Amino acid sequence: MEFNEVLSKRRSIRKFSEQPVDRSLLLSLVEKAALAPTASNLQAWRFCIIDDPALVRKVDLFSPGLSGKPPVIIAVCSDYGYALARGCGENYKIYGCIMDASMAAENLMLAATNAGLGTCAIKSYNEPAVRKLLHLPETLHLELLISIGYPETEPRMPRRKSIEEISFFNTWEEKGNE
Amino acid sequence: MEFNEVLSKRRSIRKFSEQPVDRSLLLSLVEKAALAPTASNLQAWRFCIIDDPALVRKVDLFSPGLSGKPPVIIAVCSDYGYALARGCGENYKIYGCIMDASMAAENLMLAATNAGLGTCAIKSYNEPAVRKLLHLPETLHLELLISIGYPETEPRMPRRKSIEEISFFNTWEEKGNE
Repeated sequence: MEFNEVLSKRRSIRKFSEQPVDRSLLLSLVEKAALAPTASNLQAWRFCIIDDPALVRKVDLFSPGLSGKPPVIIAVCSDYGYALARGCGENYKIYGCIMDASMAAENLMLAATNAGLGTCAIKSYNEPAVRKLLHLPETLHLELLISIGYPETEPRMPRRKSIEEISFFNTWEEKGNE
Repeated sequence: MEFNEVLSKRRSIRKFSEQPVDRSLLLSLVEKAALAPTASNLQAWRFCIIDDPALVRKVDLFSPGLSGKPPVIIAVCSDYGYALARGCGENYKIYGCIMDASMAAENLMLAATNAGLGTCAIKSYNEPAVRKLLHLPETLHLELLISIGYPETEPRMPRRKSIEEISFFNTWEEKGNE
């Protein structure tokens, strides 16, 4: 698809069909996620692709934010141990890893849209429970979950603020907000 | 451009031409940034578009991470006061706002690539100094800066890890990482 079409077609999907998603397609999404910017080319991002139906159901149980019975969930993680070993300070650990993971997640969700898939990013889950289900080692920090599957619905674009409401030139005063 | 072409063409640009960037084009980038997902449709993101050459120079002076004399810098902010007033807890303030801002920033950088522009996201700046230069009110948190302009160079893709290094299916053990 054209870039702008993908951008405007992406929606948060909360109802999925039962159709499974090919592993090769899922791996291609991760490949595209990893084209996102990453400070100092660190690439501390790690992607756990959950496509075992029983495990998806269990993660779903501990994730109030998830809905629509997705056939796949990708857990986007950051390897804090790896980041620290490469000289990243605490500040980077907190902010850099979240930012890198979020930008990669956005790439992944756009790439999924381009492939006819639907996604929804969520932060609402029982972190210790999900970590345990995925057997994540201590070094891997869970940043967010993304549900993935073929959409059953085509939600409308939620109302977005006008450009004037969210942007200003140069200084806050120019917005007339003194 | 085709979506996949944009994704693979995006690079962190660290050398810009002097050519200015039209305000209408800059606003269209913000419009595309705001198509990113945002938890509960909150849209706490705020974009300060710095295109006054004197102000760009001053922000540049206080931003060691910036390079290549960009004609424009966009400061991506989150309105914490707005988020809190709409019932977001401290956790959302820290994580939700950063994530929303990062995903919007990635949209913006991809849209810039699609328009023939170059960008570079940076976290290395003197925050109090930049805040003061932009006259940011206390409620606006500065999440990251993005330099923008027409690129003078076409950097090669930095080496990225293989898919096997950054992904695994279902549980950590399946990666063979016990």
